[in-house]
Amino acid sequence: MKTINKGFRKLGRDYIFDEIGKKAEEKENRGEELIRVSTGDAVFPLGKTVTEALVSAAAETGTDEGFRGYPPVSGYGFLKCAIRRKYLGLRVEVKENEIYVGNGTKSDISGFFDLFDSASVIVPDPGYPVYGDSCAISGLKAELLKGSFENGFLPAPCDLKTPVRKAVIILCSPANPTGEAYPEEVLRSWVLFAIRTRSVILFDAAYEAYIKDSTIPRSIYAVEGASLCAVEFGSFSKSAGFTGLRCSYTIIPENLRFGGENLGKLWARRQSSKFNGVPYIVQKAAEAALSPEGRKESEAVVGIYGNNAFELRKAFLNRGIRCCGGVNSPYVWVACPKNATSARTADDLLNRAGVVVTPGTGFGKNGEGFIRLSGFLKPEKLPELLGRLNSFYDRSCGFIGEDL
Amino acid sequence: MKTINKGFRKLGRDYIFDEIGKKAEEKENRGEELIRVSTGDAVFPLGKTVTEALVSAAAETGTDEGFRGYPPVSGYGFLKCAIRRKYLGLRVEVKENEIYVGNGTKSDISGFFDLFDSASVIVPDPGYPVYGDSCAISGLKAELLKGSFENGFLPAPCDLKTPVRKAVIILCSPANPTGEAYPEEVLRSWVLFAIRTRSVILFDAAYEAYIKDSTIPRSIYAVEGASLCAVEFGSFSKSAGFTGLRCSYTIIPENLRFGGENLGKLWARRQSSKFNGVPYIVQKAAEAALSPEGRKESEAVVGIYGNNAFELRKAFLNRGIRCCGGVNSPYVWVACPKNATSARTADDLLNRAGVVVTPGTGFGKNGEGFIRLSGFLKPEKLPELLGRLNSFYDRSCGFIGEDL
Repeated sequence: MKTINKGFRKLGRDYIFDEIGKKAEEKENRGEELIRVSTGDAVFPLGKTVTEALVSAAAETGTDEGFRGYPPVSGYGFLKCAIRRKYLGLRVEVKENEIYVGNGTKSDISGFFDLFDSASVIVPDPGYPVYGDSCAISGLKAELLKGSFENGFLPAPCDLKTPVRKAVIILCSPANPTGEAYPEEVLRSWVLFAIRTRSVILFDAAYEAYIKDSTIPRSIYAVEGASLCAVEFGSFSKSAGFTGLRCSYTIIPENLRFGGENLGKLWARRQSSKFNGVPYIVQKAAEAALSPEGRKESEAVVGIYGNNAFELRKAFLNRGIRCCGGVNSPYVWVACPKNATSARTADDLLNRAGVVVTPGTGFGKNGEGFIRLSGFLKPEKLPELLGRLNSFYDRSCGFIGEDL
Repeated sequence: MKTINKGFRKLGRDYIFDEIGKKAEEKENRGEELIRVSTGDAVFPLGKTVTEALVSAAAETGTDEGFRGYPPVSGYGFLKCAIRRKYLGLRVEVKENEIYVGNGTKSDISGFFDLFDSASVIVPDPGYPVYGDSCAISGLKAELLKGSFENGFLPAPCDLKTPVRKAVIILCSPANPTGEAYPEEVLRSWVLFAIRTRSVILFDAAYEAYIKDSTIPRSIYAVEGASLCAVEFGSFSKSAGFTGLRCSYTIIPENLRFGGENLGKLWARRQSSKFNGVPYIVQKAAEAALSPEGRKESEAVVGIYGNNAFELRKAFLNRGIRCCGGVNSPYVWVACPKNATSARTADDLLNRAGVVVTPGTGFGKNGEGFIRLSGFLKPEKLPELLGRLNSFYDRSCGFIGEDL
């Protein structure tokens, strides 16, 4: 008799970032000074405005008037209102009843798979490992959508290998791990494709705050027709340093249907049975992060992370090393030296340069031959990082640039 | 082609507590003064010790030294250590690597179903609706374990109707909704049964803080052999008023296997792909709740809720109305007047007495004929509540006591 979910057999033994974290920790415990650019974790403290809101909400919960029990499962009205205003700034109209507050895009997207049964899921590869992992746990069939230098790591519907109908299509822009952001025309082709094939797009917009190019959509709903076929996931982690506070949101257009069902109603029902909402104090902090002062503070930090990534990109390109990302994204996606695997390159960088990066294969088989570096770093560490990378590549010069 | 998870068709249109909440809110909007004893939501503010820890941790996150990004997925060591000490107080030895911090027992238990595939799940009925709902969403077959006055609403293995092998058995003690707590000998029979049938027990201990009777186990691990067959779920919601803060924990003995797999490793893998941990500030608050001062404060509040329930129990029994619970639990489970359904009784109490209760059918089909009242009420409201109930039952005296 089957008892254990066999989807787990499809997963790697460890979640990729845990695996890298363990390796790095061992070295640090031996006294080595590493520079970590392997994850997307915030390194700056929360801004003044957010901290004040958090402290004041925390104090409030200790008072008779201010105490609040179970939060509304889909979020407090005050936060939905702030999120709605944020979208208005992007010239996108979102209604409050289309907003579902969550405790992280990871939980939101992976939980969203609960809604589907035997649907095929189109998963970008390379892509955020949570897509494929949670797809496997949910017993859904994943079809990989290959990103490569040929399609600029922004695969379009024409890159699909098999005919698609009523599929769940995951898109992430700016993309994790490649750092590339979809231009409007390609997003439009996805929207038209989804409508034509009765598919639904799950659009991961966790990194939208990093988009500098004003022609690139920061929301899928900036594309005409998207409200007929797309769900959007947003996060406070990357835009406002909430990795330790946990707050996110899902936008489901109120009339969006898939497989004959209203997805918003289905998600609300799922959440009420499997989730109990986000703490009031965290929602107050998120509201503050969306205030004019809060935004100014977090934009400054986003600017620093983005600039770090841009400097990394420049450094690689200056050496003639193929890479992408780093313009509208905190990530840089870098080709490995010729004949070196991702794992080998990441290990070499760790052992010989003391730099912690993520091997591309952590993001799927099409990530082989690449590593990911992130800009989530205090800027005073940037010169040291660039120095370590340069001397590493100097020593291994035989490999460099040959694949250009 | 199937696309939508058909498990959702098995669920009621709304989560029961949302449905009741909506009805009550409509009345309150019309100016009616209701007394709500329908949910298990805290009504007292967080204690001084917890609030201070929360405020101080919140301030910390705004500093360079104090900021923390992604929490460890299974929880911070300081909280695991505090939980371990709490168990030592119950004379139960739990290792820190057996503790997984979560954001609510609802999420933990419903997420735990991700580990199973085609396992049959034994679900207490009446029982916490999340068990059955999330079981259906996960596509698992639920077998109902009937609670009744005959078995004291504490069904034992002999109450199972079909032979069981390699099943997932859910037990909740003190039970939601019936308020009855398992004596050690019945728990022992479950443990022996689980070992013999290679089943696993998911033990929901969310209400253990309400146990007054020192002979009743507050943890399944107080029963010999339980570490071979049981997972335990604990919560800060009911013991320390964390309904709005969200913190819980799961205990998985390190050698516990089911269907040939180590459950702790499987759960860790699941969590790393679908969850990003509990906010640092919430974990600091939870640690404070387990400190000697924190415990004193929350025990005082637990005492009040428990006493409210006990007074409700007394009032019903004094009128000759059949009921249970209210001794080792904040809940009282009350028989409806003869010939009246749960829904009808709950509606009558709402419309004629302004008292919001939960119809027993919200907890499964075997809840028909009962209503649940909770003690989560400020004690100054208790006399008014008892007055409303008494005059309601006075007026409908024709129905009362006939089923004794």
